Amino acid sequence: MVSGIAEQQRTTVAPPLVVLYEPVSAELEDVEAVLCREMRSKHPYVDELVRYGCLLAGKRLRPALLLLAAKACGGVRPDHILLAAVVEMVHTATLVHDDVLDGASVRRHRATVNVRWDNAASVLLGDFLFSHAFYLASTLESTRACQLIGRATNIVCEGEIRQKGSCADFAMDEATYLEILDAKTAELCACCCQLGAHFAGATPVLTQQLAQYGRQLGIAFQITDDLLDVVGSEAAAGKSLGTDLQQLKPTLPLIRCLQTADPARRAQVLKALQGDADHAAQRLRHLFDETDAIGYTRELAARYAARAVDELASLPDSPATTALRNMAQFVARRAF
Amino acid sequence: MVSGIAEQQRTTVAPPLVVLYEPVSAELEDVEAVLCREMRSKHPYVDELVRYGCLLAGKRLRPALLLLAAKACGGVRPDHILLAAVVEMVHTATLVHDDVLDGASVRRHRATVNVRWDNAASVLLGDFLFSHAFYLASTLESTRACQLIGRATNIVCEGEIRQKGSCADFAMDEATYLEILDAKTAELCACCCQLGAHFAGATPVLTQQLAQYGRQLGIAFQITDDLLDVVGSEAAAGKSLGTDLQQLKPTLPLIRCLQTADPARRAQVLKALQGDADHAAQRLRHLFDETDAIGYTRELAARYAARAVDELASLPDSPATTALRNMAQFVARRAF
Repeated sequence: MVSGIAEQQRTTVAPPLVVLYEPVSAELEDVEAVLCREMRSKHPYVDELVRYGCLLAGKRLRPALLLLAAKACGGVRPDHILLAAVVEMVHTATLVHDDVLDGASVRRHRATVNVRWDNAASVLLGDFLFSHAFYLASTLESTRACQLIGRATNIVCEGEIRQKGSCADFAMDEATYLEILDAKTAELCACCCQLGAHFAGATPVLTQQLAQYGRQLGIAFQITDDLLDVVGSEAAAGKSLGTDLQQLKPTLPLIRCLQTADPARRAQVLKALQGDADHAAQRLRHLFDETDAIGYTRELAARYAARAVDELASLPDSPATTALRNMAQFVARRAF
Repeated sequence: MVSGIAEQQRTTVAPPLVVLYEPVSAELEDVEAVLCREMRSKHPYVDELVRYGCLLAGKRLRPALLLLAAKACGGVRPDHILLAAVVEMVHTATLVHDDVLDGASVRRHRATVNVRWDNAASVLLGDFLFSHAFYLASTLESTRACQLIGRATNIVCEGEIRQKGSCADFAMDEATYLEILDAKTAELCACCCQLGAHFAGATPVLTQQLAQYGRQLGIAFQITDDLLDVVGSEAAAGKSLGTDLQQLKPTLPLIRCLQTADPARRAQVLKALQGDADHAAQRLRHLFDETDAIGYTRELAARYAARAVDELASLPDSPATTALRNMAQFVARRAF
């Protein structure tokens, strides 16, 4: 019997995404069925926690990327459905752990696991999801998927640790910022597209192009995420915002502002960062607006989106190829 | 160049274990070399964290089990060295996350990662270790190791979540307690022995016997761990003790005490659990001593150790078989 929570879960992908995902909508339904089946436990306490976790991701961007890459390169096979569920579980695990790190209280319009349960529950749920994802990947015939997913996940973790180590490092330059984004976000997007192409039988060259597409799209996605943390609406995003500056994470709007501001304004920015959180956010937003920080950030996201699109040049025209192109544009322009 | 930390790490297995591990001591050196090589990063902040993590496990019980099982079943092969490093990384990941859950401050005579850095560093380090372990396992030829390790790790996490869900459940019976131990501790020990036997070319029947040996030994190990949390010395154990009762985890001494006490003493025990931590520990220890709780717990650990030994009956005599036998006795009698 499908539970209430599981039912609810099937209907929550936002409207613009539903349109983008259209070429693989039937396959995404199959992925949901795998997630519903796998994110369970026979032990009631575990079951409640794991099923709740399943609701917290929700954009299903990574499964969609994987399936669209597969379809654009030859067609979706049963292995893709499983792999799409695997990458979503890995992604959800990182989100659940991120919410502990950020002390976030809202995710996808719901209380985070750390708020509804506590930090310990978040840590364990993330571990459960990681390990179950790896197990599922290992049920395929070859070790290839395990290798790609294990490696990508490890690079994601390394990126997250680097980001943590660079907190309050206001001398960070744009290149280092982009390197961290590449690891913590773009790597898994690249992996999704690579898995989609590889398991559809694409040539190594095409598979690498798809991986590059995923990487550029992932960077565009994260730059936009960092921008939304500054200028976004919590109502639209459905999650806690403003946490980057609260935690003194140097993201692009801040890096650009510090880089281009004159010494006096630079000093004002650094002072504002030390003030109390609510006041600091407002003050910083004002200071950002006195430079090109916001516009520059938006533009860089658009540039990475365009590079992503360029990587698709050798794909034959198809609804899936068009959707991949539109996805790249979407992630750089989204408000959620 | 081998670093100071890496050097230090090679010399810290406690004396009784060094004797037990003797039949695989050369192979354990190779495992250390793999750990030193793999638990690194080119990014200094990540590198420091990961290398520190490598120092926190230390008994190397799981690699030793895997290698001894391999040697007893036919011989250690290169895959075993890699797998022994993998299971140690998985185990270390669970320890680092456990220390966050328990708020523990000392592990293996050192500050825990959550104390030396913070909870966020612990969460990320654990994730890094999990993912790197899975990646390493996937570099072997078949998916078998990934399957066994992925599945076992997932069961460990499920056991940990169940344990968390049963906090302050003082009606828990011994059977449920043992079920949770089986998942959170014994599963990985069983997996180690299974990997050792399987990759040494043992028959399926022998492989299952070794897995059963590991399972019984794992239960004996954890019962003793829970006992040491009540009666052990922090100096000998090299880690924070008394955290189970502080967190109202129903472990066997408490379960047995509540089960056998008359209603008046039962009420005293439940009252003591609600008192301030330091006083409660002393008071509970006294109440346990008025029942057979401590002796019963010790005896049950010995019984599981004996069952573990029984599983070795069909192995030919060899130094490795003798060591496995002694290991089972050791884990039920250890003081650290």
